[in-house]
Amino acid sequence: MSSLQAQLDLACESIQHEIGIGKVADYIPALARVPADKFGAAIVTVGGEKASFGDASESFSIQSISKVFAITAALNRYEHRIWDRVGHEPSGNAFNSIVQLEKENGIPRNPFINAGALVVTDALLKDQSITECSDQMLGLVQQLADDHTITVDNEVAQSERSTSDRNAGLAHFMRSFGRIESDISDVLDVYCRQCAIAMSCEQLARSTLYLANGGTDPIAEIPIVEEERARRINAMMMLCGHYDASGDFAHRVGLPGKSGVGGGIVVVVPDVAAVAVWSPRLNANGNSHAGTAALEALVRITKWNVL
Amino acid sequence: MSSLQAQLDLACESIQHEIGIGKVADYIPALARVPADKFGAAIVTVGGEKASFGDASESFSIQSISKVFAITAALNRYEHRIWDRVGHEPSGNAFNSIVQLEKENGIPRNPFINAGALVVTDALLKDQSITECSDQMLGLVQQLADDHTITVDNEVAQSERSTSDRNAGLAHFMRSFGRIESDISDVLDVYCRQCAIAMSCEQLARSTLYLANGGTDPIAEIPIVEEERARRINAMMMLCGHYDASGDFAHRVGLPGKSGVGGGIVVVVPDVAAVAVWSPRLNANGNSHAGTAALEALVRITKWNVL
Amino acid sequence: MSSLQAQLDLACESIQHEIGIGKVADYIPALARVPADKFGAAIVTVGGEKASFGDASESFSIQSISKVFAITAALNRYEHRIWDRVGHEPSGNAFNSIVQLEKENGIPRNPFINAGALVVTDALLKDQSITECSDQMLGLVQQLADDHTITVDNEVAQSERSTSDRNAGLAHFMRSFGRIESDISDVLDVYCRQCAIAMSCEQLARSTLYLANGGTDPIAEIPIVEEERARRINAMMMLCGHYDASGDFAHRVGLPGKSGVGGGIVVVVPDVAAVAVWSPRLNANGNSHAGTAALEALVRITKWNVL
Amino acid sequence: MSSLQAQLDLACESIQHEIGIGKVADYIPALARVPADKFGAAIVTVGGEKASFGDASESFSIQSISKVFAITAALNRYEHRIWDRVGHEPSGNAFNSIVQLEKENGIPRNPFINAGALVVTDALLKDQSITECSDQMLGLVQQLADDHTITVDNEVAQSERSTSDRNAGLAHFMRSFGRIESDISDVLDVYCRQCAIAMSCEQLARSTLYLANGGTDPIAEIPIVEEERARRINAMMMLCGHYDASGDFAHRVGLPGKSGVGGGIVVVVPDVAAVAVWSPRLNANGNSHAGTAALEALVRITKWNVL
Repeated sequence: MSSLQAQLDLACESIQHEIGIGKVADYIPALARVPADKFGAAIVTVGGEKASFGDASESFSIQSISKVFAITAALNRYEHRIWDRVGHEPSGNAFNSIVQLEKENGIPRNPFINAGALVVTDALLKDQSITECSDQMLGLVQQLADDHTITVDNEVAQSERSTSDRNAGLAHFMRSFGRIESDISDVLDVYCRQCAIAMSCEQLARSTLYLANGGTDPIAEIPIVEEERARRINAMMMLCGHYDASGDFAHRVGLPGKSGVGGGIVVVVPDVAAVAVWSPRLNANGNSHAGTAALEALVRITKWNVL
Repeated sequence: MSSLQAQLDLACESIQHEIGIGKVADYIPALARVPADKFGAAIVTVGGEKASFGDASESFSIQSISKVFAITAALNRYEHRIWDRVGHEPSGNAFNSIVQLEKENGIPRNPFINAGALVVTDALLKDQSITECSDQMLGLVQQLADDHTITVDNEVAQSERSTSDRNAGLAHFMRSFGRIESDISDVLDVYCRQCAIAMSCEQLARSTLYLANGGTDPIAEIPIVEEERARRINAMMMLCGHYDASGDFAHRVGLPGKSGVGGGIVVVVPDVAAVAVWSPRLNANGNSHAGTAALEALVRITKWNVL
Repeated sequence: MSSLQAQLDLACESIQHEIGIGKVADYIPALARVPADKFGAAIVTVGGEKASFGDASESFSIQSISKVFAITAALNRYEHRIWDRVGHEPSGNAFNSIVQLEKENGIPRNPFINAGALVVTDALLKDQSITECSDQMLGLVQQLADDHTITVDNEVAQSERSTSDRNAGLAHFMRSFGRIESDISDVLDVYCRQCAIAMSCEQLARSTLYLANGGTDPIAEIPIVEEERARRINAMMMLCGHYDASGDFAHRVGLPGKSGVGGGIVVVVPDVAAVAVWSPRLNANGNSHAGTAALEALVRITKWNVL
Repeated sequence: MSSLQAQLDLACESIQHEIGIGKVADYIPALARVPADKFGAAIVTVGGEKASFGDASESFSIQSISKVFAITAALNRYEHRIWDRVGHEPSGNAFNSIVQLEKENGIPRNPFINAGALVVTDALLKDQSITECSDQMLGLVQQLADDHTITVDNEVAQSERSTSDRNAGLAHFMRSFGRIESDISDVLDVYCRQCAIAMSCEQLARSTLYLANGGTDPIAEIPIVEEERARRINAMMMLCGHYDASGDFAHRVGLPGKSGVGGGIVVVVPDVAAVAVWSPRLNANGNSHAGTAALEALVRITKWNVL
């Protein structure tokens, strides 16, 4: 078998023609002006081996990938009780749909749709200020990535916050069912800051490695989350990690993953590695077009598909 | 034919046993503590004749009945263009449902569901302050009722405002589709003040008389709204005036009407009269149980059913 | 006031430029080949006066207008108990939607959407053969129109029957909730024959006259349905007679009416007259474009709007 | 590590107290009278090792587990083109919901909800008689299980067929969108026969082994389906194999699985083994209560969770 770096190179080179396909998220200016044809990829194995390709060290907005870290924090704080407030089933609807909430008494289907992520944020805010809560989330990500230079992109955070009517609608609606306890404005502040964390593929792969190792960071040897809970986060990523195209991702890649509208995707290869890719152009479902293609190619080469 | 007063007495007396049935709205304390067994009714004819029964001069919270006055004001300000922003079809859903908004790009079905009323409020707020807008609405009602003592019940208004998450959810959701232009907080302030206007049956019947007379107040001889628009408001009341029980009301009463969760109902008898009833206990659909029964009895006696 | 005929002429002539607008129903060949620019109108007053315009004596497929006669027959047979099986509220959905049935345990919202009409047909089929039931419906229509030459257009009936998957879907779905008792094939046979009854505007206006006269045919002096039930049928037509454009029709015409996809519309003017119009081109909601325009013009001239 | 049989014994014994919990499917008599407290489990490894527990050799109705074999046959016949007719995303709705079909033009979300399975059956019926199609399906199952004694339980098949209104509703509804080509009655006949195949846990585990071995039966050394397609069937089982509780199963078991309302569940352990369990009492989501518990225990012992 060729080296990890050779495998990554082979996968990424084979899909360079895909980079120009798709459309960059443009709902806020700060995302719209990201150079559309960036492409990066990084792997970290549980043994500590690393490989990188292209723009792997360049930071981008992690957006919904942050939901993985948020549910990790919430599981540590509330243990299984968090599942009383947010489900763990696929939603069958768009990531920002409100229909299911009306039918199901304001309980969101899972923590990876926006409604569910807002409930998780609300849970994390309890007995904390906005600043404490945001700092805690950033601190967790810095710890996981073993890199304290990671920061929030304030322009993105403010821009998201000023166009958050859809999320405000979801949050108020849920609070009318008693599902949100904090001030809605605080929830949105924290949520938008969390989404605006900027990380590189290398940092993202490193920070997700605990999920490939039963919940313990294998390099720092620090337990992050209980093994069973780590597996459940992976299950959630497998079933709901790509919005309403999670089935398609499972078909093509066959690994737990989570995408963000900034063009990033992280993937967990249980017991083996964590992978992150980034390319800003999105497919019709809001997932990185070239990023998905690269992961599909990588899994074909490495035989990492768990299914 | 017996006199108007005799007909009203006969109708009301025949349904006194219905007064104890149903449940008072209790989502805010100020409504919950209204004496549950109140019952009033009043008629004003286009010729100026009046009849009253029971607690007809006692004020109560008009709540959704205010939506009739709001759409009147909006039609005067925006003419038919208001129908570009809010539909005129029955919704087939609960008054506070959000499902239809997601399917129909954030345009509410009609001005009598909450989402539609919020859009109407937003339209009225344009280029006005909260105070100006609220004063304008109260002024219109005072003019229509020919009674400048009518006021907003501030306790009700504040109480509604502090529990308005469902409406805030609807408003933010619609704004995410670009359907609301004002500050959401302002829209909710004005909307809650409008719902908290306190009027008696006598005032309400008087204030609705223009709709029974082609849009012109027949007593003050003041044109309020164009005839065609008055008929369209009546059509709206006939089809959508009783939430998701409008068909039932049309079956039983056969007249345009609008109910409020405070237990009031106004009814338009085209070319003849306006009627208002009040009894706080509500049926399962949120409409006054005894009030509806009284109207059904009255229409049977007077043959006022237009169908 | 000018004569009835003059009023009808005036109304119809004023909208001749509308006749070319819209699209003929083409889901079956027999309907698709009807000359698109036909236009007829007829009035019969409760006093027996008649007026006709254009193609008023030409037969066409009454389609959903037949639902008015079917609910009349069902009310006579089952009285108010029929409302246990079919609701009387607007649906807020397309005439052939199945979504509401799943949410509401298979009980259709009203007898004028397809699901509701199928339940009514099922009720009428009980203890009767297909032939008896179809003959009974045709017999009722012949009696109401006082014309025994009216027949079913067998080509239309067979063509509808052979493309009735949507209705079969509704019927089987409802039977899975126990809402349909007869053989589905029988229900569809009877339903398709009923829709394929061919009548002229003159016959249709005559046959609807009982609804303008409290349930009694004023010319033949034959009671057809109890007064209260007649008013409820009118209420149903007012709220649900034009599919998901009933609000629009109430806005523009302000009278109880029922349209069919063959381009016909019947309208009840309570205590005054019945009107039928026909023009095959339909608007986006499936209602006759020129027919609606003619009714709107007629009502403006005659002041027949009841609202 | 203890032996395979010891591990299975340990897992099954640890959950014997769960066997009395839940409710046997009773929508047809033939299923209702199955002894409620049966429990069986069987494992076959890709190396040919076997283990059994309890009623592992007793036949039961495989019901929806048959959908795995049907999509295998359809993939072999139509290759990737079958995905044009049926999606591969979780539905977020009940297994027999029709709502999604109306919103998505009659294309079912995946082959494991009833609507999707009916489309697969329709595809398999093309250019074949009912008998040929049913025989083909039974033949495939016999081949996979390497056991030609497997048969259809005709009583179950006929009983299902006579109560198939819900499925008939789905099928007619889809045909109204042009998604079904065969006669609906034929589709239902074949579908009901397929669901009524009776198999034991031992047979089921053996017959699913190809999915644990990249599509090739490792014992008979016969290629059944291409490797990539096998992985996609596994992905489908992981995401949609347990109706609207697939997320819960993924959380607890973390393996691709498919349950049936007869109380059976098959599970694929990629590259390792196939497992089948059976216990007729179902949880609220329609999946075997004790069966799920046994799989959860087994996976904890064996560490077979792939996530």
